[in-house]
Amino acid sequence: MNFELTGTDPASRARAGVLTTGHGVINTPIFMPVGTVGSVKALTQEQLRQDVQAQIILGNTYHLYLRPGLEVLSAAGGLHKFNGWERPILTDSGGYQVFSLAANRKIKEEGVVFQSHIDGSRHLFTPESVMDIQRTIGADIIMAFDECPPYPSTYAYARKSMELTHRWLDRCIQRLAETSPAYGHEQTLFPIVQGSTFKDLRTISATEIAARECAGNAIGGLSVGEPEQDMYEMCELVCDILPKDKPRYLMGVGTPWNILENIALGVDMFDCVMPTRNGRNGMLFTWNGVINIRNKKWATDFSPIDAQSSCFASRNYSRAYLRHLFVAGEYLSLTLASMHNLRFYLELVAEARQQILAGTFAAWKASMIPQLKTRL
Amino acid sequence: MNFELTGTDPASRARAGVLTTGHGVINTPIFMPVGTVGSVKALTQEQLRQDVQAQIILGNTYHLYLRPGLEVLSAAGGLHKFNGWERPILTDSGGYQVFSLAANRKIKEEGVVFQSHIDGSRHLFTPESVMDIQRTIGADIIMAFDECPPYPSTYAYARKSMELTHRWLDRCIQRLAETSPAYGHEQTLFPIVQGSTFKDLRTISATEIAARECAGNAIGGLSVGEPEQDMYEMCELVCDILPKDKPRYLMGVGTPWNILENIALGVDMFDCVMPTRNGRNGMLFTWNGVINIRNKKWATDFSPIDAQSSCFASRNYSRAYLRHLFVAGEYLSLTLASMHNLRFYLELVAEARQQILAGTFAAWKASMIPQLKTRL
Ligand SMILES: [Zn+2]
Ligand SMILES: [Zn+2]
Repeated sequence: MNFELTGTDPASRARAGVLTTGHGVINTPIFMPVGTVGSVKALTQEQLRQDVQAQIILGNTYHLYLRPGLEVLSAAGGLHKFNGWERPILTDSGGYQVFSLAANRKIKEEGVVFQSHIDGSRHLFTPESVMDIQRTIGADIIMAFDECPPYPSTYAYARKSMELTHRWLDRCIQRLAETSPAYGHEQTLFPIVQGSTFKDLRTISATEIAARECAGNAIGGLSVGEPEQDMYEMCELVCDILPKDKPRYLMGVGTPWNILENIALGVDMFDCVMPTRNGRNGMLFTWNGVINIRNKKWATDFSPIDAQSSCFASRNYSRAYLRHLFVAGEYLSLTLASMHNLRFYLELVAEARQQILAGTFAAWKASMIPQLKTRL
Repeated sequence: MNFELTGTDPASRARAGVLTTGHGVINTPIFMPVGTVGSVKALTQEQLRQDVQAQIILGNTYHLYLRPGLEVLSAAGGLHKFNGWERPILTDSGGYQVFSLAANRKIKEEGVVFQSHIDGSRHLFTPESVMDIQRTIGADIIMAFDECPPYPSTYAYARKSMELTHRWLDRCIQRLAETSPAYGHEQTLFPIVQGSTFKDLRTISATEIAARECAGNAIGGLSVGEPEQDMYEMCELVCDILPKDKPRYLMGVGTPWNILENIALGVDMFDCVMPTRNGRNGMLFTWNGVINIRNKKWATDFSPIDAQSSCFASRNYSRAYLRHLFVAGEYLSLTLASMHNLRFYLELVAEARQQILAGTFAAWKASMIPQLKTRL
């Protein structure tokens, strides 16, 4: 993997870059649609390529390990071959899901014992096994196995958890050094900064993570319920410690305005279920603000979903039609809303990139944020 | 509307034709995907055009009248403008839905009083109001308002119901003569032959319907639970009475083999929810037989859904991936299965047409039917 900074904003810490992987190039800042079990919900891979214009998607280690399972993924030749997505893939390590979804989880130094949320079967995830699983999935960027502490956490718990995450990281690095990619293409580890909302823990964690000199770094444990200001504060602190010449990935964030604020702090990569999940509930993000498309006021609004958007859904369907699909409970509503919101997120980061390269990002961001937050 | 017969099979009553409407040409025999409330479930209109290659779709008067309602459809300029489908549309009259879905329905000479299955609101459908509603929807082919008797029905009930349907038909014809299309393009009425599974009633009804000299005719009240042989017998009897130079539409039929058998009896047009509804349950129709894609045996079958199919889903996704999507409950499973099954139905009728034009239909049909019925 290679990362080159191609521009920085003079009035913020925002950066534009180019990330090169074994499955192609990613222009940063970038938003990565979430395809938990190997499918970004309600979209074909062709729609993701052509309509959303996604450059990289996520898969989830916990979910893919349970279904379809490693036997199937290995027989397929990895996730890229299995789901037909030939652009880059990033897999998160499953740490977050083990703690949020699985039952009867038990954390030990060795790893985590848990029961599947699907059938109750018992499993053990260790840093080593999670690296092996991600080898089998075959993602281009693979995440360290971490513990993501809940919010709020006590200082003592957050510290203990962070230290465990650091020890697990070294085991992840060790395991990857002893093994090879399963399908020939390079697989790059991103370690994860933790430390909850405690400044000194975040400082320690960012310093420890930076010292591993991995090719990219991630910030975890944010957007888990803490106030937005805390998220920005932690992100700023961590970005200032993480190396400038490596990509920085803020996990699980967030709203359009969260994304612009964090780009201003120096984040390069984002993922979030918000555009798809909220889209499936009828919440649409547009260049002029947020729409609840189920609202009666759109019943005879035959204008595009977002007149400023280039997306297939906006070019071909009206607000009135999409509202009708939602009210009638039609599956097509899920596809069009997911497509629109994801395309909007991709347009947003692409525009942010242009503003960074033009040196106008900070002023543009200041003017955009109130607009993006408007309730239409 | 214009219909030209372009070929007939020497060894059966199968015909190939060209039906020209205000929204373009339809090659018959044809299968029409069902888009009940203005959306063929889980597919975009672009997927319907490009991937399914549908030539005409159905809308449903009962559903569209309730949602989005006539005010919205009228403001949109009709269903074609509302949903962005610029090819032909046929609307069924809502008769079937009033009897199968609505609550507290009461049939009188005037029409049917019923309560909406959505909110319990009370409505009256008359032959006149149903013609007016279909004017507002703006379909190219509109269906007479009929009563579809349940199976089994007594002879007395079936006769009474059929006679009511004939009287209602004359009121439909009268109303259309007094009104004009709402959006400029021609709207053509198809009357519906009823008579349950009673040969003499079917004979009477087909004779009565033929005497109206409408531009096309439909056969209703079949595929409602009667044995397949009864359906074929009724269909044969009715096709032999209906005029040869008008298209014949068999409503709500059926399996791939039902379609081939009825083409052999002289039917030109079909609709059915089977390819989409069964598809959403994991039942896939292929050139080699029927697949239950949820079956464990497909878990590591990385071959196309149907290697003989030209469809987008088959060209891009494997049985193993589609099975995984079904097992994991992913929305994409609905899209891919619907797309595949509908494309298969369209390929089937297109191939039937070629066989008719080549004079080889009857032998081809005989060889295909056991193959289509095979459980893979
Ligand atoms: Zn859009
Ligand atoms: Zn197919």
